[in-house]
Amino acid sequence: MADKIVLAYSGGLDTSVAIPWLKDKGYEVIAVSLDVGQHGKQIENIQKKALKIGAIQSFIIDGKDEFAENYVSKVIKSNALYEGEYPLVSALSRPLIIEKLVQTAHDNNAVAIAHGSTGKGNDQVRFEAAIHALDPEMKIEAPIRDFQWSREEEIEYAHQHNVPVPINFDSPYSIDENLWGRSNEAGILENPWNQAPADAYALTSPVEDTPDEADFVDIEFKNGLPISVNDQEMKMADLIVYLNKLAGIHGIGRIDHVENRLIGIKSREIYETPAAAVIMTAHKDLEDITLEHDVAHFKPIIEQKITNLIYNAMWISPLFDALNKFIDETQKVVNGTVKMKLYKGTATAVARKSENNSLYSEKLATYTSANSFDEQAAVGFMKLYTLPATVYEQVNHIHSKEKEEI
Amino acid sequence: MADKIVLAYSGGLDTSVAIPWLKDKGYEVIAVSLDVGQHGKQIENIQKKALKIGAIQSFIIDGKDEFAENYVSKVIKSNALYEGEYPLVSALSRPLIIEKLVQTAHDNNAVAIAHGSTGKGNDQVRFEAAIHALDPEMKIEAPIRDFQWSREEEIEYAHQHNVPVPINFDSPYSIDENLWGRSNEAGILENPWNQAPADAYALTSPVEDTPDEADFVDIEFKNGLPISVNDQEMKMADLIVYLNKLAGIHGIGRIDHVENRLIGIKSREIYETPAAAVIMTAHKDLEDITLEHDVAHFKPIIEQKITNLIYNAMWISPLFDALNKFIDETQKVVNGTVKMKLYKGTATAVARKSENNSLYSEKLATYTSANSFDEQAAVGFMKLYTLPATVYEQVNHIHSKEKEEI
Amino acid sequence: MADKIVLAYSGGLDTSVAIPWLKDKGYEVIAVSLDVGQHGKQIENIQKKALKIGAIQSFIIDGKDEFAENYVSKVIKSNALYEGEYPLVSALSRPLIIEKLVQTAHDNNAVAIAHGSTGKGNDQVRFEAAIHALDPEMKIEAPIRDFQWSREEEIEYAHQHNVPVPINFDSPYSIDENLWGRSNEAGILENPWNQAPADAYALTSPVEDTPDEADFVDIEFKNGLPISVNDQEMKMADLIVYLNKLAGIHGIGRIDHVENRLIGIKSREIYETPAAAVIMTAHKDLEDITLEHDVAHFKPIIEQKITNLIYNAMWISPLFDALNKFIDETQKVVNGTVKMKLYKGTATAVARKSENNSLYSEKLATYTSANSFDEQAAVGFMKLYTLPATVYEQVNHIHSKEKEEI
Amino acid sequence: MADKIVLAYSGGLDTSVAIPWLKDKGYEVIAVSLDVGQHGKQIENIQKKALKIGAIQSFIIDGKDEFAENYVSKVIKSNALYEGEYPLVSALSRPLIIEKLVQTAHDNNAVAIAHGSTGKGNDQVRFEAAIHALDPEMKIEAPIRDFQWSREEEIEYAHQHNVPVPINFDSPYSIDENLWGRSNEAGILENPWNQAPADAYALTSPVEDTPDEADFVDIEFKNGLPISVNDQEMKMADLIVYLNKLAGIHGIGRIDHVENRLIGIKSREIYETPAAAVIMTAHKDLEDITLEHDVAHFKPIIEQKITNLIYNAMWISPLFDALNKFIDETQKVVNGTVKMKLYKGTATAVARKSENNSLYSEKLATYTSANSFDEQAAVGFMKLYTLPATVYEQVNHIHSKEKEEI
Repeated sequence: MADKIVLAYSGGLDTSVAIPWLKDKGYEVIAVSLDVGQHGKQIENIQKKALKIGAIQSFIIDGKDEFAENYVSKVIKSNALYEGEYPLVSALSRPLIIEKLVQTAHDNNAVAIAHGSTGKGNDQVRFEAAIHALDPEMKIEAPIRDFQWSREEEIEYAHQHNVPVPINFDSPYSIDENLWGRSNEAGILENPWNQAPADAYALTSPVEDTPDEADFVDIEFKNGLPISVNDQEMKMADLIVYLNKLAGIHGIGRIDHVENRLIGIKSREIYETPAAAVIMTAHKDLEDITLEHDVAHFKPIIEQKITNLIYNAMWISPLFDALNKFIDETQKVVNGTVKMKLYKGTATAVARKSENNSLYSEKLATYTSANSFDEQAAVGFMKLYTLPATVYEQVNHIHSKEKEEI
Repeated sequence: MADKIVLAYSGGLDTSVAIPWLKDKGYEVIAVSLDVGQHGKQIENIQKKALKIGAIQSFIIDGKDEFAENYVSKVIKSNALYEGEYPLVSALSRPLIIEKLVQTAHDNNAVAIAHGSTGKGNDQVRFEAAIHALDPEMKIEAPIRDFQWSREEEIEYAHQHNVPVPINFDSPYSIDENLWGRSNEAGILENPWNQAPADAYALTSPVEDTPDEADFVDIEFKNGLPISVNDQEMKMADLIVYLNKLAGIHGIGRIDHVENRLIGIKSREIYETPAAAVIMTAHKDLEDITLEHDVAHFKPIIEQKITNLIYNAMWISPLFDALNKFIDETQKVVNGTVKMKLYKGTATAVARKSENNSLYSEKLATYTSANSFDEQAAVGFMKLYTLPATVYEQVNHIHSKEKEEI
Repeated sequence: MADKIVLAYSGGLDTSVAIPWLKDKGYEVIAVSLDVGQHGKQIENIQKKALKIGAIQSFIIDGKDEFAENYVSKVIKSNALYEGEYPLVSALSRPLIIEKLVQTAHDNNAVAIAHGSTGKGNDQVRFEAAIHALDPEMKIEAPIRDFQWSREEEIEYAHQHNVPVPINFDSPYSIDENLWGRSNEAGILENPWNQAPADAYALTSPVEDTPDEADFVDIEFKNGLPISVNDQEMKMADLIVYLNKLAGIHGIGRIDHVENRLIGIKSREIYETPAAAVIMTAHKDLEDITLEHDVAHFKPIIEQKITNLIYNAMWISPLFDALNKFIDETQKVVNGTVKMKLYKGTATAVARKSENNSLYSEKLATYTSANSFDEQAAVGFMKLYTLPATVYEQVNHIHSKEKEEI
Repeated sequence: MADKIVLAYSGGLDTSVAIPWLKDKGYEVIAVSLDVGQHGKQIENIQKKALKIGAIQSFIIDGKDEFAENYVSKVIKSNALYEGEYPLVSALSRPLIIEKLVQTAHDNNAVAIAHGSTGKGNDQVRFEAAIHALDPEMKIEAPIRDFQWSREEEIEYAHQHNVPVPINFDSPYSIDENLWGRSNEAGILENPWNQAPADAYALTSPVEDTPDEADFVDIEFKNGLPISVNDQEMKMADLIVYLNKLAGIHGIGRIDHVENRLIGIKSREIYETPAAAVIMTAHKDLEDITLEHDVAHFKPIIEQKITNLIYNAMWISPLFDALNKFIDETQKVVNGTVKMKLYKGTATAVARKSENNSLYSEKLATYTSANSFDEQAAVGFMKLYTLPATVYEQVNHIHSKEKEEI
């Protein structure tokens, strides 16, 4: 009896030819496709396709809510933008996919898991790190990394094994997509001096074609997570889908970024993240009125570390868990509503309020007679606050040399 | 003979009534107005006004180039955005103003310096910290903080002392402006749930009124600083003025931010920084292809510290000097050109190149047959890279509990 | 009816003269003395003394266990050494004292709290920050800061108000003490070039007089906290008392440190912390075998922040709470035993083990044939790990100039 | 004509058998031995031994001064202790050795460099990273990593190729040594619950056998580096040798540490660093009186990063260079003298002074009538310093719940 292997199956050419390839290696292939919001209606076709090509079983798992609530949520609460720009679309779905793969492997007594990552991307590390963590004895196959085929050889192999070659196969781009956004690399984008062409984008309108009327949305947060749009409560996956559509129409969430990959190279990526742009801008804006000064100034250190751990395949790690304890504690007071203006490619926070947790005090801040700030305290504050640097200058005369030399 | 005092004079009501007030305290007042790009043509009127109100001398100092080259430059190289949003407009001009005040005081044997800051803002700390550092024995007067007048009392005092009350005196806003931008607070803005009205802005068009045609500008950087626009070399002050105008037309650089002041309160600010938005976005984008991975990931820690030191009145401090040594070293390779698209309120980097310092390698990054990346090395890399977290999980079974319990 | 005030009462001259001084201001004084391990047997005398001098009530509160379990515990788990040296003796007891003062004030309908801090130390900030946090409306009196008396004037005032002047009043030192250690400043120590004289120490023997035989103690930790010594379980307060005595005999825990105070000056301090030296060295050593690599390397950033928050009066603050969530999560695996050698002034970790949580793997580390480490993986690891710096050097030739110029 | 290879030659068995092994691969072997203070008088024997075994050339290079002045100096200025404990003995010599190897290779037209690192240590990464950086085209051989021999096979091979097997070959330990210290691993030490036996140490006396009289040494620093001992100026290499001997007699500098290696495993190491313990303790102590408050509190972040870069093979990297610019700037004021007491295994700073750069001000710190500190300023300071946390508590009632519920 042959060993079983669970294959992370996308329906694309690479993971399709992996099926006969793994069979050739002696495995019985169980295909698993996770719906994290990427597929639209073709999801059933993908399931059938795997069986047709030769999988012994083919599972479709709906992971949308789990993805939104347990994965995207951490990005929102941490304001996680890799290198200040990219809200971690692909990196984010990997740990969930792997959790489902390992579970399926255990349920079906499979001895191995196959993933479709190439040998020069971050995803292979994310897959293998998480599989090792969840089951250190699980065998791993990486057919795409091992093929080392040219495009022609791959097509040839596909024809020989009755694997249908998709019509859009000539697309120069390498795409990944889920609820939280879409990433695109390769092709003409590989020269960073080339501007991204119109067909590099799919979720967002060019700003040139967006409505001349702005949309305003009030986003309400509870414990740092969005719970309603314009007073209509939605579960998070739905809220993201809704905002992806609305913000996409306004051309919001395009990112053009040359980033540092984990595996040592730089790559140029085009991302589209309409909902993320709206939600994350609103979230940071609400933090500005609800987080205490020192929390607001230290949290970015934690945020950068969390962001890098997610990008760098360390979702399952004790440091990630400990950092999230910090984040969760800070989010208890991030409650309130931010009014977002969606217009001409940009999501802008134009107003914000927090009924119970706003630290903004009009009485302290105002310059009118309602002022309750003790202005004379400032004199004492300044004296002690500046004392160390003043003594340093008095002793060492770095910036006050001229006068001393008189 | 009366003691002389040097007054930081803006021409506004507050520093104008400070002249008779300081005279009443027995000083001879020397007015100093620094042109850091805020005044336009009225600068000579300001000089005359001070004399007319009662100053014994009135100096105008052109600080625009010094401001651009020694002050704004540090913000650009450090990607300095306070709390991730505000490029430090007001904070930045203070140390230069103070340097000139102290120098004028020494040149004219003045014993004291007067500044026009209120008692609840950051500026008083910036003024007094820098004066202390440059001359610890210099006396400091802060008339506005000491007045404690209502608006009516101030006008009454002005009338009694022949200080003209400006026509736009009823403006609810408190404005500060220089080459690098404009800040606006108070008035209706004090409620953060109020949207900023049209008249809160002065340097930028509303996006609704911007051109339907984009402008593209190629910004060239040398050692991290902009040296030309569309191949036309300009000194930095001119380059900033040029971009302020062009980007302002496109509605770029509006910021609406509730920020944490040094003196313990939150305040809501409206900033306009058109040139800063263009230059700083371009600068970060160029760093993305020229900074090495570890530099790119550690520099933000330094940047946040530098940003806070500038905001928090510590321009003259040994930590600021040491951090800038770090920054300057990193900028030696930040050479190249970024193509910026200015359109509908947003400055976007759409292409970038660096002839001698680009670390982006198409040969390493490409998925075509030109690929020179060693894909098998990834296997060894992953094994060791993930070893600590894997051993941790094998020992402690945090995420792999279920299986172990079988 | 007079307003009641709760006074933090130590029994010393300063807080004793505060009693008539507060009565003169019209208060009825309620004295509160907290036993955090400093007093030995005289605690009842202190209670009586307050009443004799004029307090209307005098409470003694035993806080030793609470102090050890809720306060010292946080220092141990965070390896909290201020400026790398001082385990936060005085800073640590303040929040507990204040909690008890506020509670007593509420129980007795007092309107104010008085503390005995001077105007140039850290303690005044710790007291007032915590009182404000726990009850923003509570009035605060700081008699010692307000006296502004010379020593002679204070004695004169004491004689006039029947306050007994202690025999050791001539001591040049200013002492603070609790379970976790003893601090000493002022007097001859104020010149940092003076060596601390023998009488500056009280808890530890001079190394010259310590036993010639070492003591070995096995300290067992659970969740990062010590639970037994040489297999004998003790509650933490008792364990600390036990180790203070034993390690004190061996001259362990002397610290001579010029430190940066919160209020802007440097001061020279002599600390004695025998138990802290033993426990904290053991704790760090146990972490070395139980914390995962990335946790071990990031935790110091958190530790420094926690340490500074404790020192700088921010025990009650949202940042402190959030950081402790991080710390607590990391400590779940810090279980095991460390063998400490106590000898000639030093506590050294000489052996360590952790039955369930050791990440040290002899099989991976050994150079014998039991070796299970994949040595060839290192080749791939190195290639990718060093790729960014290598590409940087290839492009920019910073260190390889010479050859290139040939 | 055969290709030439430069071999890093230590004279030990591993690098000795590497000579015939490399010859078998077709190379002509050029042996290079760098004297970084490890060898004593046998250095000439090593040179001869390489020739006898079959090297075509054998160079001895005296690198002691360069090592002290360009390498050890960076550790001192950065207080660089890996994981808080280990002053980077082995890591530190690698970049210098490699610089010499590459230079020798270039001078002699060699095409390859061979190093004697194993496949599971940090050193292989340090060697290969630095060689790649200095000459990306240089070929690298790692015979020890490739042998994969058992001890018996290695001896057999040695006998066959006339390589003498050393008498102490049975030593269970793996030793590395230079001016800055000695590291020892493997053997009985591989179980971290085993105490290190007496023969694990070579540079230091057991504390049990140290003199009963302390030695006091005044160490003078200039720009953060030691320049004299007891007023006798010495160049740094000599000063280190002197202190190694003196402090070694007092049993100072023993370290027993389970550390995280770069390549993902934990290993237990015994280090001896007598001079380092004295110099680095003194250096930190001098910084305590000369570094300004904010510098003192931010420098540890930089120090940890520098330490990790050195340990992790990133000596030649742009981040390392930039961080050192920061450090060098801070050290300009680290001038003065520290009195160290060497006694019974411990080096203690007992007094310190800095004629021109001390920021310690007795006038500010004293409690006597000479006091020049403005004690009333503290009231204003506290009010604003604690304002954010106080407002947070007033709004959110985290710690003041009980009262509010009344």
